[in-house]
Amino acid sequence: MEPREPPLADLFSPRGVAVVGASPADRASFATHVVRSLKEAGFPAIYPVNPKHTKVLDLPCYPSLRAVPGAVDHVIVSIPAELALGMLDDCAAKGVKSVHFFTAGFSETGDEKGAELERAMLAKARAGGFRIIGPNCVGLFVPKSRLVTATGMPLEPGPVAFISQSGGHAHDLPYHGAPRGLRFSKVVSYGNALDVDECELLEYLSDDPETEIIAAYVEGVRDGRRFLSALTKATARKPVVVYKGGTTDAGKRAAHGHTASLTSSTAVFEAVCRQANAIQADDIETLVDVLVALRFVSPLLRGNGAAVAGLGGGPSVLASDEMEKAGLRLPPLSQEVQAELKRFLPVAGAILRNPVDATTLLFPEAISATMRVLGAVPEVDVLVYHLGFHPVSRWGAGLASSPTFLRATIDALTDARRATGKPILLALRPAADWNGMKEFLAAQDAFVGAGFPVFHSLRQAGAAMARVAAWNLG
Amino acid sequence: MEPREPPLADLFSPRGVAVVGASPADRASFATHVVRSLKEAGFPAIYPVNPKHTKVLDLPCYPSLRAVPGAVDHVIVSIPAELALGMLDDCAAKGVKSVHFFTAGFSETGDEKGAELERAMLAKARAGGFRIIGPNCVGLFVPKSRLVTATGMPLEPGPVAFISQSGGHAHDLPYHGAPRGLRFSKVVSYGNALDVDECELLEYLSDDPETEIIAAYVEGVRDGRRFLSALTKATARKPVVVYKGGTTDAGKRAAHGHTASLTSSTAVFEAVCRQANAIQADDIETLVDVLVALRFVSPLLRGNGAAVAGLGGGPSVLASDEMEKAGLRLPPLSQEVQAELKRFLPVAGAILRNPVDATTLLFPEAISATMRVLGAVPEVDVLVYHLGFHPVSRWGAGLASSPTFLRATIDALTDARRATGKPILLALRPAADWNGMKEFLAAQDAFVGAGFPVFHSLRQAGAAMARVAAWNLG
Repeated sequence: MEPREPPLADLFSPRGVAVVGASPADRASFATHVVRSLKEAGFPAIYPVNPKHTKVLDLPCYPSLRAVPGAVDHVIVSIPAELALGMLDDCAAKGVKSVHFFTAGFSETGDEKGAELERAMLAKARAGGFRIIGPNCVGLFVPKSRLVTATGMPLEPGPVAFISQSGGHAHDLPYHGAPRGLRFSKVVSYGNALDVDECELLEYLSDDPETEIIAAYVEGVRDGRRFLSALTKATARKPVVVYKGGTTDAGKRAAHGHTASLTSSTAVFEAVCRQANAIQADDIETLVDVLVALRFVSPLLRGNGAAVAGLGGGPSVLASDEMEKAGLRLPPLSQEVQAELKRFLPVAGAILRNPVDATTLLFPEAISATMRVLGAVPEVDVLVYHLGFHPVSRWGAGLASSPTFLRATIDALTDARRATGKPILLALRPAADWNGMKEFLAAQDAFVGAGFPVFHSLRQAGAAMARVAAWNLG
Repeated sequence: MEPREPPLADLFSPRGVAVVGASPADRASFATHVVRSLKEAGFPAIYPVNPKHTKVLDLPCYPSLRAVPGAVDHVIVSIPAELALGMLDDCAAKGVKSVHFFTAGFSETGDEKGAELERAMLAKARAGGFRIIGPNCVGLFVPKSRLVTATGMPLEPGPVAFISQSGGHAHDLPYHGAPRGLRFSKVVSYGNALDVDECELLEYLSDDPETEIIAAYVEGVRDGRRFLSALTKATARKPVVVYKGGTTDAGKRAAHGHTASLTSSTAVFEAVCRQANAIQADDIETLVDVLVALRFVSPLLRGNGAAVAGLGGGPSVLASDEMEKAGLRLPPLSQEVQAELKRFLPVAGAILRNPVDATTLLFPEAISATMRVLGAVPEVDVLVYHLGFHPVSRWGAGLASSPTFLRATIDALTDARRATGKPILLALRPAADWNGMKEFLAAQDAFVGAGFPVFHSLRQAGAAMARVAAWNLG
């Protein structure tokens, strides 16, 4: 009888971590970067392992895993593939719970020897009573346990879980999501999915009380029926967003070379997602956008009617086009509502028809009053305010960079949100120059800190909102 | 007989400009911002006009246009609409060539009085022998003449012309295009198109020797037949990219409120563009991308086969999907080509199938060698190198921020471009934090300075290239 694999729950709170293959000053060494990241994150017990060195970044370095004095639950391995089996013997001897292989060069090379080696590795893991993550991945990011493999990750725990067949995406999503307010329970990069795979992870996360929203980047699934069942179980309990890589011929070729994934037909995969009521995304930017919408807008959203206000006729026309194309409705405003707006907005150079565009929509009083009027329209479910960060939109006065102005704008929007009871989201268009970007990032921080969902274009806001509205109403 | 309107050519090299409605310290005044912009650009003869003031930003301010001592060719007007007719009498008396009305509150308000006022204004312009730009627009930007209405614009002249019914877009395109290497001959924001309209501008720019590429943002055209004829004339001589705003119900409503445009059916408009062989864009970002591709890639492009190289399996899979979806081909690499790559790229953790992904593709030697091998593949017409700017892609060593490294990378790519004779484009993924953005913007500057087209994602690079390749081959 095959030994039963230990449960995933054991993986997420290791107390001792060994990093095999770390070296003192190798500029591009993953293992060294992992040691640095763990140190910066304040992980308590880090054990670099490398027979060639005695110190790595001021930590004692051990010649082998067996030579590590303390207990080791989790091992991060970055050594050549041909040393993998010996390494796993050491792991069994040390009594670890999990081994993450950053190491690549297995089945994804397309070489039969790589696939054979993987089978031998799995047998050793089962016999040793521990789990393998990867190979060919960046492993675990668990903020609560200070377990990281990269710097720049948000260390405050939060409700989003992300499972990713790509290591790059596993680093990218938390990094790009952090300034937008996303915080994470568990991020698992699982690469070739030799042992821990997307199905088991989905099942685990469905039950995980620390996870409220699940995101997944999948290149291929081995067992379609099990995947549908795991996905359906997950979506019954919490929103799940799936980004499928490898949807074209070249993408399939790349995915096979990347994680040995035999990607299924895109149409079948999309049908599976629809059947399971999962939200679909088609790149990391969209994934971040949809997660922001789920986290900060979804609980308050009652329908797909949007009202848009901001400065600029061009952006307003674009907003209308993009939002309606994405599937939101921009209900026209009645004569009565337009008359109300005319009481405090200038008519000249303004559009008062939803979108609302007026030069004074740069000032807190006008923003607040406009949002209140729009929020009272029954067909409007979500309010959108957009703002461009470039020298012209700040007409020579550095308006957006003034902390007083920023504070007043945030207060105005917060009041309007409270008064209308409807979600307000912001489309802040990034700048193209240094000064503008500094102001943009500072403003984004302040808005996100006040609990507002921030998107980087009206198109992206519309696309994310439309998906979440469809899911909310579905 | 109606007087014939003076030719557009007279509009682009004014020697004296009056700015009517400027005031000393009004934070959000367009006219004051125009005076500041003209001063910063070094325009020689700027005459603020406002009966309430005697000085504006250290310049003498005159009580009326007639009181201006020097010659005035061009007048920029930002005063209430009801004062427009009197203003035009002053213009006739002063013998100006053109009047730009920033002022809004005319036909776009939907009020019959506004449309009536516009007709009276046009009659005065014809009688006075001058042209009207707008109303309801930001007018002219002519780098060669130092004529600007906004700060932050690229003042070095170049081959791109842009005509825009939206003032916001007329400022946004040069601002966002500048760091990507775009420089401009003429930018005309024409708003309600009372006198100067898109057809006349297209005809003029077709013959303009300073313009090699034409971009247009159009909300509505009054005379479809004339538009088709002007567009066809232009596309016969130079590439024309058209972004049409107001393609949905809400967008049409917004466009009508914005510039009084009665937008035609989107299907008809798209058919007109296809018939005239114009390239279509659907937002300002795409417009910038397509212009970059036309300016820096198009002359060298022979087909739609692309080879992609860079670091990261996830981005590589995305690249493949996005580029093939956009209409480019990523030809698979033969065993022979893969064997050549294996001579210097590590096999483990790498994809050698196009896209090519290997950890060493962060180093100049590997980048150069890879590009040379890929560039020698006959089915490959364009080479793409992608690079992410976030803490992880620089694995703890600040590689991308090192000037030596940046210089070496640029040299490697320049050598490869020369050796292969094929265009190389860069997809640089922006950072999410301030340090990363600083490095991103510095690297973008350096790459653009070396003549490389830079895009901000593989998706955007693919979308722009596919449009330009289709147009090149069409």
